[in-house]
Amino acid sequence: MKILVANLGSTSFKYSLYNGDESSLSLVARGGYERVTDYGATIRDALSSMQAEGHIDSVDSIDAVGFKTVLGFEKTGCVAADESVVADLRASAELAPAHNPAYANGIEQFAKEMPKAQLVALYETAFYQWASAASRRYAVPKAWYEAGVRRNGFHGASHKFVAERSAELLGREDVADRVRNLYVGGHESFEGQPLRVVSCHLGGSSSVTGIKNGVAIDTSMGLSPQSGLPQNNRVGDLDSMAVTYVMKKLGLSIEEVERQLTKESGLLGLSGKSNDVRDIWEAVEAGDKDAELALDSLVYGIRQYVGSYMFQLGGLDALVFTAGIGENDTGVRERVCQGLEDLGLKLDLEKNANTRGEETCISAEDSRIKVYVIPANEELVIARETSRFLSHNK
Amino acid sequence: MKILVANLGSTSFKYSLYNGDESSLSLVARGGYERVTDYGATIRDALSSMQAEGHIDSVDSIDAVGFKTVLGFEKTGCVAADESVVADLRASAELAPAHNPAYANGIEQFAKEMPKAQLVALYETAFYQWASAASRRYAVPKAWYEAGVRRNGFHGASHKFVAERSAELLGREDVADRVRNLYVGGHESFEGQPLRVVSCHLGGSSSVTGIKNGVAIDTSMGLSPQSGLPQNNRVGDLDSMAVTYVMKKLGLSIEEVERQLTKESGLLGLSGKSNDVRDIWEAVEAGDKDAELALDSLVYGIRQYVGSYMFQLGGLDALVFTAGIGENDTGVRERVCQGLEDLGLKLDLEKNANTRGEETCISAEDSRIKVYVIPANEELVIARETSRFLSHNK
Repeated sequence: MKILVANLGSTSFKYSLYNGDESSLSLVARGGYERVTDYGATIRDALSSMQAEGHIDSVDSIDAVGFKTVLGFEKTGCVAADESVVADLRASAELAPAHNPAYANGIEQFAKEMPKAQLVALYETAFYQWASAASRRYAVPKAWYEAGVRRNGFHGASHKFVAERSAELLGREDVADRVRNLYVGGHESFEGQPLRVVSCHLGGSSSVTGIKNGVAIDTSMGLSPQSGLPQNNRVGDLDSMAVTYVMKKLGLSIEEVERQLTKESGLLGLSGKSNDVRDIWEAVEAGDKDAELALDSLVYGIRQYVGSYMFQLGGLDALVFTAGIGENDTGVRERVCQGLEDLGLKLDLEKNANTRGEETCISAEDSRIKVYVIPANEELVIARETSRFLSHNK
Repeated sequence: MKILVANLGSTSFKYSLYNGDESSLSLVARGGYERVTDYGATIRDALSSMQAEGHIDSVDSIDAVGFKTVLGFEKTGCVAADESVVADLRASAELAPAHNPAYANGIEQFAKEMPKAQLVALYETAFYQWASAASRRYAVPKAWYEAGVRRNGFHGASHKFVAERSAELLGREDVADRVRNLYVGGHESFEGQPLRVVSCHLGGSSSVTGIKNGVAIDTSMGLSPQSGLPQNNRVGDLDSMAVTYVMKKLGLSIEEVERQLTKESGLLGLSGKSNDVRDIWEAVEAGDKDAELALDSLVYGIRQYVGSYMFQLGGLDALVFTAGIGENDTGVRERVCQGLEDLGLKLDLEKNANTRGEETCISAEDSRIKVYVIPANEELVIARETSRFLSHNK
């Protein structure tokens, strides 16, 4: 089976070609384009390259194309990327202006250029569709809810990957299997021993997700990716009254508020220096107080959410770090895990200090809660889910 | 020592007169006025009543007047309510429009009518002044922080009372004594065995506070009392991007957004029925799904914050419920404490079901984490802090 994963920006296009069946997909080709003006021509060019390199015989050798769509009003899950998906992406474009129009247009172009391939949309919100209403609703007037003000959640592909992989590492094939079938078999009731995991996806964009028996119970991002943890340059959690307060106090327009909260806030806003945690660590080591505050705030935010979900889950079996910061930032991981011995969590400091980008258990032998680093592989997740969709809908 | 506690609204005035010393203050008189237009005349009338009833010999018999001020830009703690306090209350009036002007005006009137009494301001934010910068800052641009966008916290008087009383109940006189002296002796370093408490003030207005060795480490309300838990008709936590989103999507003005988020949201917004948890329980029992969602959301929010603070504290010794809902709503308490056996918390269901408005330990004998109901007494707290201020500043 040949699966193409298409990553679409407003003027960019990246692709990865996978080959194999669901459990043995391997990456065979990868490419990308910037400053794209004619999407049709670009897709044709990419297909020609793959053909010239001998990865495919013709356009029709590709069985399916997987898209990591962000969110829609009506749609979620892993579904056929048909006209109704395109329409829904357009209808909800205000909630994801950087992504939804690009995917709506891109999916239409792929339908034209590859009429025989199955197009599949894997929503970033898919993993949260079984979370409780209490965790998904804001206490807003009904008109706001109906206008789309709800807790969507993002990074679903990454957290679902952690749900599956952590279950495997903990020897819980029953849970891993449940996760694998979540989008194709539905969410069946689970009778096994409870498995409680918290997944920390920490990178340029960060979120924490609580997972019970392989299914998300909640996640730190809500309506938009500007909520939850302080992000690289996006604000994270903020009292909503701050918005109207500064509009009046500082005379800011709606557009200016949005720009400042999405471009000049988060780690950049706190540190006043950089949106990159590596730069912030450097500044901390040079004694910079604002950088220290930015780092402290990130760690504090991560702990808030890990603690929340541990409590909602009634306990914790494993804590997982993934994505750029999660996989590589030994200092952030150490701080997140500090002082938790009474709660049953003890890091192996040496293992932690030596682990970068590799799947490793970094908790101490006698830690009741296991701590893992699990490298993210979102493209593989999309390819897998696309392949599962295909197998299930043959 | 005679202490008057003055509760001021924009057109209301309530008072309580206490007599005794700090450790033995008792309420001797109480009264109130509505639709006040002339504050000076109202104060004189109240003083005449107290005199006629034999509680005071003259105006000058009252040693001090205590005010529970909400917040200021520059001021916090328990301080002399002088001209600089009045000016600061006025400067920060936009952050507490319902309270700050009333207290600024009221304090000026009391200064005129009772020139010999010491006026004392106990800020609702006072208990959070030693919390970490990471817990107090939002990841906003510096200009927003300088304009006053920070996590203030409220219900400080109530949570401090819980900090003191819970330490007494746990036999930790060292911590109780530290709490008593917090606003007069400052925040001295603490060498004793750690004591970790989470206090849930649940009423028309609700917040959760984490307390380490008698000092708050964080609280669920931030910039405004519209954040944190879903409140009676105020929204609680909400993605800040929802504000600009609905302004554009629904065409709402700043004023209309503020009105809806402070009057038509929270439990009222979710249930579509009532802002009172008692009505909501009734509707739940009649099978109303929206009421069930409102109740679930309240419980869910409480658990989020209790879990966060338990984790930040590295463990928990006691969980305390106070204020209207906390003291009387056996069902909310039961739901908050459900499924926590693995974390060391087990409610005594019968004790819980029989406890309303009374100081009681409601955890099971073998619960590692103690659970208490501690009735709130905010006026007594103000009288006590005022009396401590007086003793310390003689």
